[in-house]
Amino acid sequence: MSDGNARTGRRPGQSSTREAILDAARVRFAEVGFELASIRSIATAASVDPALVHHYYGTKRELFAAALELPFDPQVVLEQLAATPLDQLGETIVRAVVGLWDSPIGTPVIAAFRSQLGSTDPALARTFILDIVLKEIRPKVDSPPGTGAKRSVLAASQLAGLMVTRKLLRIEPIASMPVEELAALVGPTLQRYFTGDLP
Amino acid sequence: MSDGNARTGRRPGQSSTREAILDAARVRFAEVGFELASIRSIATAASVDPALVHHYYGTKRELFAAALELPFDPQVVLEQLAATPLDQLGETIVRAVVGLWDSPIGTPVIAAFRSQLGSTDPALARTFILDIVLKEIRPKVDSPPGTGAKRSVLAASQLAGLMVTRKLLRIEPIASMPVEELAALVGPTLQRYFTGDLP
Repeated sequence: MSDGNARTGRRPGQSSTREAILDAARVRFAEVGFELASIRSIATAASVDPALVHHYYGTKRELFAAALELPFDPQVVLEQLAATPLDQLGETIVRAVVGLWDSPIGTPVIAAFRSQLGSTDPALARTFILDIVLKEIRPKVDSPPGTGAKRSVLAASQLAGLMVTRKLLRIEPIASMPVEELAALVGPTLQRYFTGDLP
Repeated sequence: MSDGNARTGRRPGQSSTREAILDAARVRFAEVGFELASIRSIATAASVDPALVHHYYGTKRELFAAALELPFDPQVVLEQLAATPLDQLGETIVRAVVGLWDSPIGTPVIAAFRSQLGSTDPALARTFILDIVLKEIRPKVDSPPGTGAKRSVLAASQLAGLMVTRKLLRIEPIASMPVEELAALVGPTLQRYFTGDLP
């Protein structure tokens, strides 16, 4: 999310091509969302061959993670959650997500969200949440049919608020609460959103 | 939260004194919090008489609202909540807070939080939440004794996440959900944090 031009320390030739791809990817993902942004259209915007995009960044999801400057492929975390029984989804997600934020790779994740939340057009973060994070969860919690979007975004709202209070504003006692305690306190909120009887 | 020097359109003499007071207030509130920041110390930092601070900005709480560029005195909203029965606090707060964000005076409130969340030192927002917003609620929900801080900050985390999803990232269906539906969905979360049996 930072301006690629502000970086230093890489060899100019290859690095400027890589940055041109990332810049084109950020614009495209923000404009049309994850699903509709094709590697081909991003390559065209960056004036490179699509094969080079794959060579540098792998899959479209990995490119998206790189565009957001995430130091990992979110798919790996999401696949762990896919194996979780529905009635344990709330606590499991709080534990996994907060554990990720608290880990060394959490620092750039927090920084990316800080930058997006401070922006007046946070389309990348919206795309990331809707098309990557919630995509796997939405169909799992779509009962009765049609409620999956509402249920998953409500859960996302509580998680976003945890990030704000724990990592951005650092408000105690949430800021330094053990992950297990937080999972026990907040997990039931997500569980109700996922599987509870909602009005 | 914006840099006073960037403003235009006011008469230079009086406006620069008013801005000097606001700048001093922002620094002081961020440094020592709302309770410990005295009008006297803010006046000294701005090189003006304390009476002038009162003349321009009224009470310390009103000065804080002005420093955060809030277009209202939060105390007025908080006093409405003080009259609410404890078992209706969850839904009532969601309705009041979201109603405020959606109203014309919500725009500068959202802008102030956007600016603070994007900052690496969001001390003003932390002070505002801890010393103003949660101060009245904390003792009301302190049962069993000692749990008030945890209960009120958990509720703040869900409200912060609502602001992020509804107003900053504007993720549907939360972004355009009617306030009453949001109150019915999210009110029970706050109610559990306030008065439920927590682990």
